[in-house]
Amino acid sequence: MSDQPLVIFTPSGKRGRVAPGTTVLAAARQLGVDLDSVCGGRGICSKCQITPSFGEFAKHGVTVREDALSDWNKVEQRYDDKRGLPKGRRLGCQACIQGDVVLDVPPESQVHRQVIRKSADTRPMVMDPATRLYFVEVEEPDMHEPSGDFERLAQALSDQWEVTGVTADPSLLARLQGVLRKGNWQVTVAVHKDHTGAVPRVLEVWPGLHEGGLYGLAIDLGSTTIAAHLTDLETGEVKASSGLMNPQIRFGEDLMSRVSYVMMNPGGEVELTQVVRAALADLARALAGEAGIDPALIVEAAVVCNPVMHHLLLGIDPTELGQAPFALAVSEALSMPASDLDLGTINPRARAYLLPCIAGHVGADAAAVSLATAPEMSDELMLVIDVGTNAEILLGDKTRVLACSSPTGPAFEGAQISSGQRAAPGAIERIEIDPVTKDPRFRVIGLDLWSDDPGFAQAVAQTGVTGICGSGIIEAVAEMRMAGLLDPSGLIGSAEQTGTPRCEAEGRTHAYLIHDGSAEGGPRITVTQGDIRAIQLAKSALYAGARLLMDERGADRVDRIVLAGAFGAHISPKHAMVLGMIPDAPLDHVTSAGNAAGTGARMALCSNAARVQVEKGVREITKIETAIAPKFQEHFVNANAIPHKVDTFPELLQVVTLPDVSFNTGGDKPGGRRRRRGG
Amino acid sequence: MSDQPLVIFTPSGKRGRVAPGTTVLAAARQLGVDLDSVCGGRGICSKCQITPSFGEFAKHGVTVREDALSDWNKVEQRYDDKRGLPKGRRLGCQACIQGDVVLDVPPESQVHRQVIRKSADTRPMVMDPATRLYFVEVEEPDMHEPSGDFERLAQALSDQWEVTGVTADPSLLARLQGVLRKGNWQVTVAVHKDHTGAVPRVLEVWPGLHEGGLYGLAIDLGSTTIAAHLTDLETGEVKASSGLMNPQIRFGEDLMSRVSYVMMNPGGEVELTQVVRAALADLARALAGEAGIDPALIVEAAVVCNPVMHHLLLGIDPTELGQAPFALAVSEALSMPASDLDLGTINPRARAYLLPCIAGHVGADAAAVSLATAPEMSDELMLVIDVGTNAEILLGDKTRVLACSSPTGPAFEGAQISSGQRAAPGAIERIEIDPVTKDPRFRVIGLDLWSDDPGFAQAVAQTGVTGICGSGIIEAVAEMRMAGLLDPSGLIGSAEQTGTPRCEAEGRTHAYLIHDGSAEGGPRITVTQGDIRAIQLAKSALYAGARLLMDERGADRVDRIVLAGAFGAHISPKHAMVLGMIPDAPLDHVTSAGNAAGTGARMALCSNAARVQVEKGVREITKIETAIAPKFQEHFVNANAIPHKVDTFPELLQVVTLPDVSFNTGGDKPGGRRRRRGG
Repeated sequence: MSDQPLVIFTPSGKRGRVAPGTTVLAAARQLGVDLDSVCGGRGICSKCQITPSFGEFAKHGVTVREDALSDWNKVEQRYDDKRGLPKGRRLGCQACIQGDVVLDVPPESQVHRQVIRKSADTRPMVMDPATRLYFVEVEEPDMHEPSGDFERLAQALSDQWEVTGVTADPSLLARLQGVLRKGNWQVTVAVHKDHTGAVPRVLEVWPGLHEGGLYGLAIDLGSTTIAAHLTDLETGEVKASSGLMNPQIRFGEDLMSRVSYVMMNPGGEVELTQVVRAALADLARALAGEAGIDPALIVEAAVVCNPVMHHLLLGIDPTELGQAPFALAVSEALSMPASDLDLGTINPRARAYLLPCIAGHVGADAAAVSLATAPEMSDELMLVIDVGTNAEILLGDKTRVLACSSPTGPAFEGAQISSGQRAAPGAIERIEIDPVTKDPRFRVIGLDLWSDDPGFAQAVAQTGVTGICGSGIIEAVAEMRMAGLLDPSGLIGSAEQTGTPRCEAEGRTHAYLIHDGSAEGGPRITVTQGDIRAIQLAKSALYAGARLLMDERGADRVDRIVLAGAFGAHISPKHAMVLGMIPDAPLDHVTSAGNAAGTGARMALCSNAARVQVEKGVREITKIETAIAPKFQEHFVNANAIPHKVDTFPELLQVVTLPDVSFNTGGDKPGGRRRRRGG
Repeated sequence: MSDQPLVIFTPSGKRGRVAPGTTVLAAARQLGVDLDSVCGGRGICSKCQITPSFGEFAKHGVTVREDALSDWNKVEQRYDDKRGLPKGRRLGCQACIQGDVVLDVPPESQVHRQVIRKSADTRPMVMDPATRLYFVEVEEPDMHEPSGDFERLAQALSDQWEVTGVTADPSLLARLQGVLRKGNWQVTVAVHKDHTGAVPRVLEVWPGLHEGGLYGLAIDLGSTTIAAHLTDLETGEVKASSGLMNPQIRFGEDLMSRVSYVMMNPGGEVELTQVVRAALADLARALAGEAGIDPALIVEAAVVCNPVMHHLLLGIDPTELGQAPFALAVSEALSMPASDLDLGTINPRARAYLLPCIAGHVGADAAAVSLATAPEMSDELMLVIDVGTNAEILLGDKTRVLACSSPTGPAFEGAQISSGQRAAPGAIERIEIDPVTKDPRFRVIGLDLWSDDPGFAQAVAQTGVTGICGSGIIEAVAEMRMAGLLDPSGLIGSAEQTGTPRCEAEGRTHAYLIHDGSAEGGPRITVTQGDIRAIQLAKSALYAGARLLMDERGADRVDRIVLAGAFGAHISPKHAMVLGMIPDAPLDHVTSAGNAAGTGARMALCSNAARVQVEKGVREITKIETAIAPKFQEHFVNANAIPHKVDTFPELLQVVTLPDVSFNTGGDKPGGRRRRRGG
C-alpha cells in the first residue's frame, strides 16, 4: 500500500495517487480532471466545488474515512459565511487530500460540461467557449522596473493561467488603469482565444471577482425571420430567446427579389445591410432586457444564415449569388470584431463568428445543420433535409458527405396554396380522410380536439378554421392519395370517380372540400388541382435533390432521414413519404432534428471544438450543384408522380395502402407541369 | 569550363551558374539576389529591370558576349513600346541567360533598397515594408468546385507569391467581387504582413496592375508640434512633409498642464484625444493633397510620441503619468487598425504602428531616437541626448544601454528667459563675446551677416533684433563665461568687476547687455542673473541625468555624444560643453542626429526589421528613474557650477580657456538654486 492517498474522481472515473496535503483542485489538474476555477485557487469564485463521499466503496476498492479531506480552513469558512456552500460541498482549492477519497465533480463545476439538449437533438453539446473569465492578481507598478499596466496584466495571465501573448484594443487599454486600481490590483478579465490561432485578446476587465456572468448570442438569420438565443457562455444555458421578422422583407419577400432590388437600385445593398444589422442590434438589446443583464456582458456572437443573408450582413453586394456560377465573395468561416457588423449595445469589443458557407446556394445555415446533425460521424447513411424555401440536403456517413440545395419554392410553407396560410391559430395542421366515407377530420393549431370530437365547433369558434398550414397541406395531399381521391399522376378525381360530393368541379379540374365555414362567415377550405401541382413541384425538387446525392453516392436507399428546420419538426414522416417528398425508409428511422441551424449556431457559440469541426466538415463536404447536374431534370420529372413514377417504396407499403386509381380521361395530361407552372 | 553560364550580379557581387535559358528574375531568386517584382514575372510591372554589361571583366574573370542575354521577346517589346524602357535596361523576367553575364541591379529594382539619408543620420535605412503589392491572377469561380472569390484570391497569393493564410475585413470583401471582374481576374493586392506574426491581411485590391503607388505616414507627435512625412512605401522616399501646432496647446502649454486639465475636467481626456486625432487626420489629408495622391493610398502609419501624447492619442486618461509611480497603461509597441485612431480619409483598412514606450517618462519618441542612433550597435560608449522640455538620455554601447529622462524645463527653448523667444527670424542664434573688449557680435536667424559686418543694420531692419532663441542663450551664457563676465558659480559680474558698462546693475544683481534696439523702437536684449539661473537649472538637470547613467555604467567619460532633436541640430557643441550641459568629450565626437525621432518613425514605417529592432532594443534597455535615484540630487547640485563643481573638462580645456573669476561679494550666495527657484 502506498503512503500516497488514492483519489478517485466521479463521474469521470479518473484516479491516481497524490502527495498528502495536495488540494483537490491541484489533484484534479494533475490527473487531468475537468474542474473549473476562475479565481485560480483563491477561494473566492467557488467554481471548483466538489462533493466528497465517505465510507466503503467496493466498486472503487477504497474506504474513505471522515478525515480524508482536511478540515475547513479560514478561507472556506469565510466563503461559507458570506455566500453559503451547498450541504456536503467543499471548495476544491481549499480542501486538502489526507487519505483515500472519492470526489464527485458536479456538472456546474466542469468547464467542459455537457449541455443537455432537447430530445430532438442528436448529440450533446460540450462547453469549450472561446471567451473565458480569469481572475488575476497583477503586480503593482514599480519605478525601478517600469512596464505598462497592460504588460503586467499579461504577465499575470501568463504566470497564473498560462494564457500567453494577449493583446487588447485601445478602448480596453483606456479602461484598464482605473479598473486595476479600483480592484486593488485584483481583476477579472474576459479573454477571447478562439480556434484560429489568432493572438488571445482581452475583451473586458472588471475590478475584483466578476460574478455577473458572460454571454453570447447565437443568431439564426433567416430570410423571413431572425431568431437569437442569449446564451450563458459559462453554462451553455439559454437565458432568453427571441425572434423578429427580417425587416428586409419590405425590399422583397424572397431572396431573389432582394437580389433584384440590389441590382436595380444602386446602393441598395447598403440599405439592406443597414436594416438587417439594426434588427440584430434591436434583438440583442431586447434579449439583454428580457434576461435582465447589461448588454455589455454580451462578448460573442455566432451567426448562421444562407449565402445571400451572409453577404448582406457583411455588407457585400449579393448580385453574384443571383446568377451562375453563383460565386460567393467569401466562403470560409469569419472571425471579426462584432463592431464590424454594428451589433449595437453589446460589448464594444465583442467578437463575431460567422460559420462557413458550403457553396453559393448552400449557406452557413446548412453548415450549422451539418454541425448539429453530424452526418460525417454517422455509421449509417444519413439524409438530412432542412426544408424551407430552398431545401438544403446533406447525404453521407463517416466515409463521405455530399450536399446540395434544391429550389422547392414556398409551397411547403403554405404559400401559393389556395387555402394556404402561415402556421397560426386556426390553421389546419393535421388531417385524416376516411378511406370509406372519404370524409375528413382535422385539427387546427391551438386546439387539441379533432374536428369530429364533441365540443370542437364551440372550441374553434374563437379562432375559426382559417386555412391550411404547410404541414397540413402535406397531410391533406397524402391522405387524399391514400383515400383514393388523388391518382398517382396527381389528378383529383370527380365526384363520380371518387363517390364523394366533396370532390367538386372547378372548371375542367376538381377540388376536394375539407371544411365549409361559410355558414359561420368563414372560408370554404379546399385542396384544388392547382394546389396539388404546386406541392408536386416542390416535392419533386426536394426528392430529385436527394436522389441526385444518392446517385453520387451510388446508394438506392438511405438508413436514416433527419428533417431539420422548424417546419421539419411538424412534418409527419408517413405523409411526407406517401407524398414522395423523401425517399423510402423505415418510418421510425425518420426523425426531426428540430431547429438544427439554431442548434448549430449555439454549438459554434459555445465551443471552439465545434468551430474546428464545422470548418473541417464543410471543407470535406462534396458540393453538388443541382442547376448543372444532367440527371436532375430526369429525377425531377420522375418524382412528379405521387409517390414516384419508378422508385418503389417497400418500407412505406408495409404500413400504408396506396389505391391504384387513375382519373385521367384524356382531357388533362398527367404530369402537366410545364403547362401549369403558374399553379 | 561548365556548360552552365556564370551570372554575376552587381552591386551585391552574388554569383553562380544557372541553366541556359533561365530568366534573370529566376536566376536572381536562385542566387538570393534582391530583385523586385510586383507582377510575378508577367512583364507588366517593370520592377525587375536590370542593366547587362558586355565585354571583358578582368575583375570578375568573365567575358560577356553580345548574345549573353536572349533577344527582346514580344512581351518586352510591348512593354517598351507602351511605357518605354530606359536605354540599356532589360526586363529581368523576360531576358533569358544564354552565356556568362554581368548584371547590374539598379537601386530602384531592389525591394530592400537602402534609402540615402541626410549626412546627419548615422545609419542607412533599408526598405522592408510591412505592406507590399502583389499582382495575381485569380482562378475564376467554378460551380463544380464552389469556393469564395476571396478563397481563390488567397490561393493565388499562396501559389504565386508564397503569401499564405491571408485574411481581410468585411469592407475589403465587399469590394472584392467587383474589382476581380473589372480586372478580368487579374488584380493587384496590398498585403500587410508585419513583424508580429499576425495573420497577413489584404488591405486593398485594385483591378489589373496597380501603378498608383503605396504610401505611409511617419508621424512625430510632439507636445508642441506635430510633424508628419508622407513616405513612399516602395522606395522610402519622402513625398511631402508638413507640421502643425498641436491643438492640445489650448488645454495647456506643457504636458503636465494637460494632465491637470484632464484631472480637473472629467471627460477632458476625450476632448484632448479628439482634437489630436482630428489634427492628424487634417495633416494626412493635407499631405496627400500636397503630394497629389489619393489619401486611400495611405495604408500605414507609424507614430512616435512622448508617453502623455501616446496615451492621449490612444484615448487613455494620462493621469497616472502625472504622479509616481508614473505607470503607463501600456508600454509595448502596438499594431492596430488606423481606424482605431480615427485618422480620417486615409485607407479605411490602413494599419497603425505605435513604437514602444521605454518608461513612464521616456516615450516612444525616445525609442525612435534609439532606433535612429542605435547605441546598442555601437562599439564606443555613446551618449544620446534628445533635448526638449524633457530631455531623454540614452547611454550605452553593444554591451548594454541605459535610459532616463530629466526634467530640464523649457529654458533651452527660450522660455523663462527674459529676452527669450522661439526660433524665428530676428532671433539671435549665434553670439561671440570678445574676451578683451567684452563686446558681443551676433547673428540672427534669417541673415548670414554678423552684427559687426558692414550692412548688417540695414539688412536686419526688416525683422529687427527681436530676442534670443534657445541655441542663442546657450552660446550667450557660455561666451559670458569664457569672456570672464560670469563666474563658475553663475554670478554675473558688475561693471567694475568686469570692466564693461554692458554689465548693468539690476537691483542687487547684474545683467549683460547684448543689443540695445531702443533707438529703433526695438527691445534691449540682455542676459539677466535670472536667465543664468534658469539655464543653470536646465543644464544641471540634463548633466545630472547623463552623469547618473554614467555612474550606472561605471563610466567617467563617454566616447561620443549625439544630440538629437531639432534643437540639438543647432546647438554648438563647444558652447554646450562650456556651459556644462554635456560631459567632456573631444569636440569632434559631438554630433547631431537631426530629427532622430522623426527618422526613427520613418524607419519603423518602412521596415519590419526596424520594428523588431526597436522592440528588442527597448526591452533590453535598463531604465533609470531620476526621481528616485539617490545620487541625482547630488549630481544636480554639483552640475550647477559652470561648467561643473567637481568634474574636470580636460578635452574642452584643450580648446578653450575658462577665466578663474569670482564675483561673490558675500551679498549673493553662489549656487543659490533653492532661494531663486522661481528664477
